[in-house]
This record gives sequence, C-alpha cells and structure tokens, in this order.
Amino acid sequence: MGKKIQLGTKILSANEEYAQKNSTLLREQGKYCLNMISSPGSGKTTILTRTITDLKGKIKIGVIEGDIQTQLDAERIRATKAPAIQINTDGSCHLSAAQVSSALAQLPLDEIDLVIVENVGNLVCPSAFELGENGKVVVLSVAEGDDKPAKYPAIFSKSKVLLINKIDLLVSGAIDFDVERVKSDCQRLNKDIEIFCVSAKTGEGMNGWYDWLAGAVNKKG
Amino acid sequence: MGKKIQLGTKILSANEEYAQKNSTLLREQGKYCLNMISSPGSGKTTILTRTITDLKGKIKIGVIEGDIQTQLDAERIRATKAPAIQINTDGSCHLSAAQVSSALAQLPLDEIDLVIVENVGNLVCPSAFELGENGKVVVLSVAEGDDKPAKYPAIFSKSKVLLINKIDLLVSGAIDFDVERVKSDCQRLNKDIEIFCVSAKTGEGMNGWYDWLAGAVNKKG
Repeated sequence: MGKKIQLGTKILSANEEYAQKNSTLLREQGKYCLNMISSPGSGKTTILTRTITDLKGKIKIGVIEGDIQTQLDAERIRATKAPAIQINTDGSCHLSAAQVSSALAQLPLDEIDLVIVENVGNLVCPSAFELGENGKVVVLSVAEGDDKPAKYPAIFSKSKVLLINKIDLLVSGAIDFDVERVKSDCQRLNKDIEIFCVSAKTGEGMNGWYDWLAGAVNKKG
Repeated sequence: MGKKIQLGTKILSANEEYAQKNSTLLREQGKYCLNMISSPGSGKTTILTRTITDLKGKIKIGVIEGDIQTQLDAERIRATKAPAIQINTDGSCHLSAAQVSSALAQLPLDEIDLVIVENVGNLVCPSAFELGENGKVVVLSVAEGDDKPAKYPAIFSKSKVLLINKIDLLVSGAIDFDVERVKSDCQRLNKDIEIFCVSAKTGEGMNGWYDWLAGAVNKKG
C-alpha cells in the first residue's frame, strides 16, 4: 500500500532551508537583497544597468542573473563594471535558493551594499520560491497591458515595489495602458506596495526608485 | 531505506494520458487544435479576437482560455460570438491536459473546425506539458526584445508557428527590435518553424497567418 507523500511541502521546505541560510548570511554581512521578478522582456536588465550606472559612488550593487540559457544578461551587467554572477537554470522556470546560495559565495560581498537577483523571466513561478531576499520588486512594462495585476495577482501581492516600465511608449499614444487601473488593482492586493512609473530607456521617473533604494539599503529592513 | 521516486516522469505521464485522450477525441471528430503560448501581454487574446472576426464564415473557431485568475479573456472572446471556455488554474503556471479534457467536453465541438487553447501567460512552463494539440503557436511581441529565442529556446524549438506581434510599434521607432535576428535564431533552433510578422491591432500581416491556418485545418496535419 502506498504512503501519501506531500510533494509541494517537501520541495518548498528544502528551498526554505537554503533561503534561510542566504538570509542569515546577508544579515550577518549587512547586505540588502532584492529579488526582481517579471515576464521576459519587461526591461529588468535595462533597469539594472541604468540603476548601477546612475548610483555609482552612492550604492555598490552586485547582481545575480538568472536565465534559462545564455550569459547575455551577465555580460550586459559586467559592461557597467558591477560584479555579476550568471546562473543558467537549463530549462527550470525559476531560481532556487540553493542556486542563489552558490552565487552569493562567488560574489565579492565585501565590495557590495546591495545584491539584486534578476530572476528568470516569468511572472508566475518565481513568486513561489523565497531566495532569502529582503523584498521582491515586480516589473511590468506598459506594453504588457494593464490587466496583469488582476490576472497574475500573486507576485503583485508579495512585492515591496512595482516598477511600471517603458512609460516612454505611452507618450507616442501607440499603447493603451491605464496607469490608474494598475495602481488601484495593485493597492487592492497589497496596500503597502510602492509604485514608480519609470522609463529605464530615457531615465524618466528613475529618481523615485533610487530614493526608495537608498532608504531601503540604509534601513536594511 | 527510502526508494528512489522518479517525480518528473510520473507527473508527465499522467498528463500524457490525458493528452492522448484529447488527441484521440479531436482526431475522431475531425477537429484541428492549436496550443498558443507566450509571455503575459504579448497579445494572444487580441490575435484571437481579430482572427475569429476576420475568418467568420470561413473557419469556425472555439477557444479554451487558460488564466490563473479572472474570466476577462473568455469575455473578450465571447464578445466575438465564438464559444469560449475559461479555465482558472488558481496559481498554476500552465494548463494541464486534464483541464483541457474537461473544457473540450463543454465546447460545442460539432459547431467548430478549429480549437485554439490560449495557455497561461508564461514563456517557460507551458512548453513542457502536451495538451493533445496538433501544434504549438508561440507569440512574441516586439516590445519583449529580440533576444528571447536565445534565452528561452524550448518553446521556439517546439512550435509550428511564431507570430511576431505588435509590429505597428516598430514604425514609430520607439522600439529597437531586430526581426532578422529573431528569425535566424529561431530557424537555428527549428528549421521548420513558420514565422509571420503581424499587428493584431492594425491587422497588418495577418493574412499570412490566416492562409497558414486554413491550410492546417484543411490538412488536419
């Protein structure tokens, strides 16, 4: 007779052990860590390269890049001179805390204030796997449509920050996107979420995000 | 002493059983079925509503809508008068063949030539779960960037058709997207893939896709 195995529980708790280990390491070393999540192509890497460049001399940022294949994103980060570790998941749809643990061991943490983990492009699965971070940042590009918080509520419920990216595309009138709908849908899911409308391409709106980052890194909260 | 359990194998084979059941049902009834996969916000539902409307009187289309939450997409399909069954996965990142089996039982198949399954918005996980379809269609919007076939190869390897959508955004010069890079990266992964550049918003390029659909439905191949 078979015995019932609670699959979901066992897998999550193995991940949770590594997440706790990462969280302890980061706290002991006084580092702040964010887990950045979005669909493919919302602009996570461009947000990171501009943020690293604009905050040079203010906040020292190290990056862990999660992708199914290729080193393309880590190469873009390294072009800014920031340290970047690329993880290739070889088909897996999210980063695991174990993968982040091994990447943290390769980062020069003594030269870093803030670790940003760029997760695999996927608005769904990464939200279920804690990595030991202090908070999640969800990115939504205006090209993806304003119905996404209603249709994919989990990640919007769990994030500290929402970056609404590519707002330069709204100016041309080429895209219908109701910013107020997104804000009210998000705030219904998560009353504490901080929302910034940005264009990582033009730089518009990025200062609000930088101020939030500086506050978070200083508080280490 | 514990016994090794091959988790992946067991889960996939349960799904495969339902996929086979769906495939048999569709073949016996002479219906063609496509599984449409993309990131959130690439324009799958808009492609479907325009396709249904433009092919009225030529191909009778029924839709199975997969979303984590909400009936929003099925409502958009029903506004075209096509039959649509909404599946809510309640957090799951892909449709299962069992869910599609139950939706097929609710569709008026005798009034339908072509069943299109719109999968949950996710470029990664749905590619690993066969639903019993004749083929997969991957949608990539130009706003997502031209590096996506390299970074998310699985779905581009497995699809019969790639629709490059939102090409109206290229005209304004607001977006950098190298169509030739996407085509050559895709063809390296999958020499048989058919690629159409379309704008579901303006209608540009949709005729090539309609001709392909008509051929596929007639051949039932």
